[in-house]
Amino acid sequence: MVKAIVAGNYGEGYRLAGEIGAETLGVVEKVFPDGEQYVRISEPEKAKGSKVVVVSTMYPMQDQAFIKLLMLGDALARSQAAMYLAVIPYLAYSRQDKVFMPGEPVSALIVVNTLKAAGFRKLVVVDFHSSSLLSQLNDYIVNVMVSDLLVKTLMSDAERPVILAPDKGALERARFAANSIGVDYDYLVKSRDRVTGEVSYTPRELRVAGRDVIIVDDIVSTGGTIAEASRMLMKQGARRIHVATSHGLLVGNALTRMLDAGVRRIALANTLGVRVDHPLVEYVDVVPRLATVVKEILGSEP
Amino acid sequence: MVKAIVAGNYGEGYRLAGEIGAETLGVVEKVFPDGEQYVRISEPEKAKGSKVVVVSTMYPMQDQAFIKLLMLGDALARSQAAMYLAVIPYLAYSRQDKVFMPGEPVSALIVVNTLKAAGFRKLVVVDFHSSSLLSQLNDYIVNVMVSDLLVKTLMSDAERPVILAPDKGALERARFAANSIGVDYDYLVKSRDRVTGEVSYTPRELRVAGRDVIIVDDIVSTGGTIAEASRMLMKQGARRIHVATSHGLLVGNALTRMLDAGVRRIALANTLGVRVDHPLVEYVDVVPRLATVVKEILGSEP
Repeated sequence: MVKAIVAGNYGEGYRLAGEIGAETLGVVEKVFPDGEQYVRISEPEKAKGSKVVVVSTMYPMQDQAFIKLLMLGDALARSQAAMYLAVIPYLAYSRQDKVFMPGEPVSALIVVNTLKAAGFRKLVVVDFHSSSLLSQLNDYIVNVMVSDLLVKTLMSDAERPVILAPDKGALERARFAANSIGVDYDYLVKSRDRVTGEVSYTPRELRVAGRDVIIVDDIVSTGGTIAEASRMLMKQGARRIHVATSHGLLVGNALTRMLDAGVRRIALANTLGVRVDHPLVEYVDVVPRLATVVKEILGSEP
Repeated sequence: MVKAIVAGNYGEGYRLAGEIGAETLGVVEKVFPDGEQYVRISEPEKAKGSKVVVVSTMYPMQDQAFIKLLMLGDALARSQAAMYLAVIPYLAYSRQDKVFMPGEPVSALIVVNTLKAAGFRKLVVVDFHSSSLLSQLNDYIVNVMVSDLLVKTLMSDAERPVILAPDKGALERARFAANSIGVDYDYLVKSRDRVTGEVSYTPRELRVAGRDVIIVDDIVSTGGTIAEASRMLMKQGARRIHVATSHGLLVGNALTRMLDAGVRRIALANTLGVRVDHPLVEYVDVVPRLATVVKEILGSEP
């Protein structure tokens, strides 16, 4: 029998538990007055001998969420679960996926390897940032792409649409959506004018004039990159700019920043513990797709 | 050549670096707008081939401090340090040192084992809470006791002093201070009146009437236990109550709570990233003792 533990930071997890037919195990979660976290599985005897799916996310409060996952892993090992995996729709620290400058850690690997050491059999993640780590980690991270779902919700009123990745690193995500829907795609190239020093973003091959552009990316944090890209594309004659991003962290005034730069609609996945409420922002439910993936894993893992 | 890295949360670390004759390596520390942390060793080439002492503490913001330590460990491994250890005057999560109720994790072991996996050769800790883990962990944690130093600063105006541990678990700490100074010690026993149901704390053997009591403990968080003990001891005729606690987290109104309950003076160790400023609170510098211990380790570790 499959059991699920849904961490308090990701309410969507209850539907996931339902869709995979798992019984939800209760967890006591609290924070002591001094800031230390505490968790306890309410009925550990139900975890014993079971396959357990832990559902949590890592935004907001990335560090707290990480430690809570380690605690749940430890509690499940001690409760003698047959095996346990984690569904972490948003896996934080994934952008620090290599040593960009000497002296840096690779935080993404720290997070993943520590969760592995905590006994999680696999991590199921929505739109993991780092393609290089995905190939390095030998299927330990199961990446669930959702850019097609996000783009589809924006297609209803799109004219001559084109999908653009904001950089070459995000191209795979754009291609995935474009191919499944059947529209053109390209990526933006950053260039600097040799005389004025001005930086600009232009699509590598396509022309955007008169077309609706859908920018596809995985994480939108301060909205700076998208705002800049949007302004450039508008200058190049784009008709309208839409944004399809899996993880809408939307820090500070990110939303205003993008809308001011000409963005008309934003589609986000429901991967975080928070949501913004705004008429131009639409959340796409990725729980059914996660459920399909989790069921497959549970079927194949002993 | 020994190098030191002092994390931004523990300014006392610079003196420690000085006392062990280490060159301090710069670290860039920042927090991204979305809350993720970033660290980078400024001159990693200086870490290469060196013994490196990382000095950080785990209060306030235990979870952030923990992850920063993991990042520094990873960065040092990648910078090819010959070996590195961590001085963590206050090691958080040490109170959850066993499964008190089924379904719980052992958070103290998670923290210690994860730091070990991050490559820290040893952890040097002031007054580690868990005696059971100290014996389990095969000298991985080097525990630096300081209760004698704290008690000494309170002895100047103590009359017929007696040292009391608030429970049997803290007895070793009380004994250590008492033996090094040469005064009586005992521990408090919690008992419940069978008729009224009232809980009281009384010393197991000694009488406190007319004597100055110095309560010795490792961590004071909300001050609840000490306030209660203080009230009981005053009822039993104690002359004055002093408190010697290594880690003064002093959450919320902890200080007022203790002073209201009759506590006259409080001695704390400088193990945290924060201090309170109050005429009845005195900080005792434990850096020289830490330095002695670190020098010994560096001398014996290849």
